[in-house]
Amino acid sequence: MVESRLTGPVRIVGAGLLGTSVALGLRSRGIEVILDDASPTHVAIAADLGAGRPATAGDAPQLVVVAVPPDVTARVVAAELEAYPDAIVTDVASVKAGILAELVEQGADVARYIGSHPLAGRERGGPLSARADLFVGRPWVVAAHDAISYQRAGAIDDLILDLGATLVEMTPEEHDRGVALISHVPQVVSSVMARRFIDAPHAALGLAGQGVRDVTRIAASDPDLWVQILGANAEPVHDILVAVRDDLDRFIEALEAPQAPGARRRVAEELAAGNTGVSRLPGKHGTDKRFTTVIVMVDDRAGELARLLAEIGEIGVNLEDLRLEHSPGRQVGLAEVQVVPEAAERLSEELAARGWRIAG
Amino acid sequence: MVESRLTGPVRIVGAGLLGTSVALGLRSRGIEVILDDASPTHVAIAADLGAGRPATAGDAPQLVVVAVPPDVTARVVAAELEAYPDAIVTDVASVKAGILAELVEQGADVARYIGSHPLAGRERGGPLSARADLFVGRPWVVAAHDAISYQRAGAIDDLILDLGATLVEMTPEEHDRGVALISHVPQVVSSVMARRFIDAPHAALGLAGQGVRDVTRIAASDPDLWVQILGANAEPVHDILVAVRDDLDRFIEALEAPQAPGARRRVAEELAAGNTGVSRLPGKHGTDKRFTTVIVMVDDRAGELARLLAEIGEIGVNLEDLRLEHSPGRQVGLAEVQVVPEAAERLSEELAARGWRIAG
Repeated sequence: MVESRLTGPVRIVGAGLLGTSVALGLRSRGIEVILDDASPTHVAIAADLGAGRPATAGDAPQLVVVAVPPDVTARVVAAELEAYPDAIVTDVASVKAGILAELVEQGADVARYIGSHPLAGRERGGPLSARADLFVGRPWVVAAHDAISYQRAGAIDDLILDLGATLVEMTPEEHDRGVALISHVPQVVSSVMARRFIDAPHAALGLAGQGVRDVTRIAASDPDLWVQILGANAEPVHDILVAVRDDLDRFIEALEAPQAPGARRRVAEELAAGNTGVSRLPGKHGTDKRFTTVIVMVDDRAGELARLLAEIGEIGVNLEDLRLEHSPGRQVGLAEVQVVPEAAERLSEELAARGWRIAG
Repeated sequence: MVESRLTGPVRIVGAGLLGTSVALGLRSRGIEVILDDASPTHVAIAADLGAGRPATAGDAPQLVVVAVPPDVTARVVAAELEAYPDAIVTDVASVKAGILAELVEQGADVARYIGSHPLAGRERGGPLSARADLFVGRPWVVAAHDAISYQRAGAIDDLILDLGATLVEMTPEEHDRGVALISHVPQVVSSVMARRFIDAPHAALGLAGQGVRDVTRIAASDPDLWVQILGANAEPVHDILVAVRDDLDRFIEALEAPQAPGARRRVAEELAAGNTGVSRLPGKHGTDKRFTTVIVMVDDRAGELARLLAEIGEIGVNLEDLRLEHSPGRQVGLAEVQVVPEAAERLSEELAARGWRIAG
């Protein structure tokens, strides 16, 4: 573990899910944490959880992390800059450009402010849902601007790396357009879909499967929080919603006359565009796209899978991943062997030559 | 295990995911299964999996299950009714009213036909993805109509119950409106959302979290299949899409002037309506709504949880469910104790009196 350059103390304003999680993560690295919140109960719970100590007069934080609702973030950041003239101040609100603009307008000392946004959250808020490892492996955007020096902004970089998150640098405007696309518009789309269930017959809802549950899961999000987020990022969200609405209109038009010339082609193109779009989301979506899958039938007999793996080793192909599928009622299982694309054909041929049944 | 009244043989036309899964489920109950498919490879793979034997001249099926793409279902059902004049015929296509109408129009013997629709599927199709237990616990709609006798339709009921599914009776029209709402419109909504990612900066997509992944997961569905489904159920899908579009328009209008009087209230109402809608989907969504959760702080010491459970027993409250949350960096864990609502207050009070810290 590399020693943090963050020496603390770090003052956390807002002991909710994010603030308390930041606090727990810093405490686990031995950094002194000072907790403050409009709710004394939140501070008491967070302190009980081991997240730090309540604020006192005379605190001299190195860094202040403002983790309060979006609507009041700019005001609280301005107050913290004023109260702690030697501290660097950041916030974790999910919209960035408006806060910086508001601080500049108020004449706040933005040479000590740099906004940030950890892309992490849970379904439930509050300090009780906090976790020291909430940010591990998650992106954490630093909203770079020109008025703060590289050296001062470094305190935020240290915070992010200490908490195990991945630092992503963007301008506030790039950030806000990005989260409009991958967070705020999906929230609206999920909500308007779920709204349709209000008047639906109970029997119809009983047919719901995993697909619709996934599409509408985030429709359960807190309206109070989301009103603030959508209001603060209205312009980018608006523009993307208009594009979504126009696509919906194309579907609607095609389905008005589904037998008309070109209607099926248009629907197919819209669906294929959805395929293309979702494939651009990074990370695992089912099978890892870097590898090719060779499917081998394996008889349901002890030792057969071990024999297959041994023979793949003899053939000299590196096994990247393996999934085994077997279900009651089937006499054979399927071993899905993932290898680099260059090796797939040779592996299939050599396994077939050794008597294995290749299913795909 | 209750002896099935289905004696077989059952002929399966279409050895894809659904057909092969039906076949495997029936074989596991010892029923003779005959496999047919336009693709001899599919039949061979399904037979290799233990799903049945290839069709031969002179087969005399009791029941025929047509599991072919929606576009050709009516034609294949008509041919099967003709070829096997003693058999009951069903299909598993995901839209029902059009098929019955087409059969009636063609003068097919619908006194031996009853459509059905198992609400089950997987991301991948084909016989290799088939499972004998694919339908267990899933709804399976029987699209009741007047031209088939109760006794004849009973063969379909037996099939459904043999496969462990839950029989749901609806008219073809009720079914089609229901699946438009809980399957077809969510597909369109997911696709139009995902389409927005095509031109997005890579850095923005890197911020994607679980929410947007859930909303757009089914955007990866097969366009060929979905063109058929949406085309076959165009009218109900169209009508719901128009309602979704109108809701989107309300969001768009409110975000055009987010500071205007009433704009925030309108956004909040739309989001709250999404809350209400998604809460109507049956089944578990996070915490079971039948129970009340009492959250107890448990020190991270051996034996503390056992002591808590013993004391809950002494208090005489029945523990319905328990989740324990502990994360590194926290000095206490949280035990979420679920009890019937009537018992929650007494449990909280008595635990507090015994010195436990109640967190919610």
